[in-house]
Amino acid sequence: MTSTQDAAHDLARLSVNQETLKQWSLPELAEGCAALGITSVGLWRAPVQEYGVQRAAALMGDHGLTVTSLCRGGFFTASDPAERAASLDDNRAAIDEAAALGTGTLVLVSGGLPEGDRDIAAARERVADAIGALVPYAAERGVRLAIEPLHPMFASDRCVVSTLGQALDIAERFAPDQVGVVVDTYHLWWDDRADAGIARAGEGGRIACFQVADWVTPLPEGVLLGRGQLGDGCVDLRGFRTQVDEAGYRGAVEVEIFNPALWARNGAEVLSEVADRYRKHVL
Amino acid sequence: MTSTQDAAHDLARLSVNQETLKQWSLPELAEGCAALGITSVGLWRAPVQEYGVQRAAALMGDHGLTVTSLCRGGFFTASDPAERAASLDDNRAAIDEAAALGTGTLVLVSGGLPEGDRDIAAARERVADAIGALVPYAAERGVRLAIEPLHPMFASDRCVVSTLGQALDIAERFAPDQVGVVVDTYHLWWDDRADAGIARAGEGGRIACFQVADWVTPLPEGVLLGRGQLGDGCVDLRGFRTQVDEAGYRGAVEVEIFNPALWARNGAEVLSEVADRYRKHVL
Repeated sequence: MTSTQDAAHDLARLSVNQETLKQWSLPELAEGCAALGITSVGLWRAPVQEYGVQRAAALMGDHGLTVTSLCRGGFFTASDPAERAASLDDNRAAIDEAAALGTGTLVLVSGGLPEGDRDIAAARERVADAIGALVPYAAERGVRLAIEPLHPMFASDRCVVSTLGQALDIAERFAPDQVGVVVDTYHLWWDDRADAGIARAGEGGRIACFQVADWVTPLPEGVLLGRGQLGDGCVDLRGFRTQVDEAGYRGAVEVEIFNPALWARNGAEVLSEVADRYRKHVL
Repeated sequence: MTSTQDAAHDLARLSVNQETLKQWSLPELAEGCAALGITSVGLWRAPVQEYGVQRAAALMGDHGLTVTSLCRGGFFTASDPAERAASLDDNRAAIDEAAALGTGTLVLVSGGLPEGDRDIAAARERVADAIGALVPYAAERGVRLAIEPLHPMFASDRCVVSTLGQALDIAERFAPDQVGVVVDTYHLWWDDRADAGIARAGEGGRIACFQVADWVTPLPEGVLLGRGQLGDGCVDLRGFRTQVDEAGYRGAVEVEIFNPALWARNGAEVLSEVADRYRKHVL
């Protein structure tokens, strides 16, 4: 093999989530990935809608790119019936979009606590109810719902599902090909029960998506955009990748880093760095 | 009883951690608490050292104040032998200070990951080792070491012990009167295993300290100073207080809020608000 082929082979499982290259349009992302021999991307609903769902699907196909996941559905915790109905409608639209993009994985972020609500257990139960309401619709379209636990610092305002154990407690109420979980190193690295959760998820065939980002401090105001480039932080990324592999996962390794410092740089340079860091710290 | 006596009775278990009133000197804190009929405080090492440990002990005694805890020892995760030895020396000094203040409780914050370290399990084990090294010294002086799990958002830079379960896993290696745990609502509110942890801690006689603060967002940069006044956030404070009571805890309810907006206000006004919020949301 030539060194280019070697490099491409190294990157066979790498998927680049588009939020990592937020400075790029969808065509720039498709061209940039194709140029480096990267064959998979994770997409987000808003930029895909803006570009046009069918047009985005064609663009990815033209560049030989597989869409490994669509982010994101969810936000299921409203107790108001009208808000709940609107959320379910929006999630059905997300399922349709995932199907149109040819991805079998719709990532779900549960939603936080409604204003004034102090009952997080009840909010988690509403998440499970909403997923139950969506499963038949998603299954008919070949889309698996992937529950993503977010770091506990997001529990009040973004995602009441904070651990892999909680995500599995919900997922396991449904068939494994209909509801899975997302294993994201950024959200789970601190948890001494993550190992057991990954093994449990693997045994049940529940790992729908594996995402990597590093943990760095200090956290910025609002904490959403503080994710670190692979290798810049304290997460044992290779350890996580090995664990999901040992649990039987054979899917993509999706790099999802929300970081304004990366967004401020040249996209091609950042993507090349991501590929290098992936080889050095994850592969 | 007069209404003043009623009010004082209501506040019988209330302890005010001095970081809640950081704008106050130790004499201002002592006088302010005494004026409201508050009989307990939690103190911090640095301001106590600055004022003089013996002098602080006398000041509290003169105002009829019990010191319910001293914050804080810990920072045990260094892998460098010289740093580790320095940390143990500093913790022995903290134990002496706690004994001099007449409190049986030294709160321990474990410390984060050393620079470049990605092995959080090993860091937690170093915490347990250090506690083992300190237990005889503390026990001789009648001081119980109280392991405080901090919210997982502090796991890398401040405290590798993130859950009550992890704190108990370490504490239970020692006698209950020598090593206990801190139950702090701010750090534990998101965890669906906190209930089980509180019950387990109660059965083992391990609840050394109960602290309350509310969870509010957005988190500020660095996330340390984002705690909310009681009732301003999403934590079921009364639910927690009921749980620790049902687990057999009979000690103080210590209000510890790090919040620059409170520090910018008149101390007496803030303390009065704390007492009102305590009655409304905790009692």
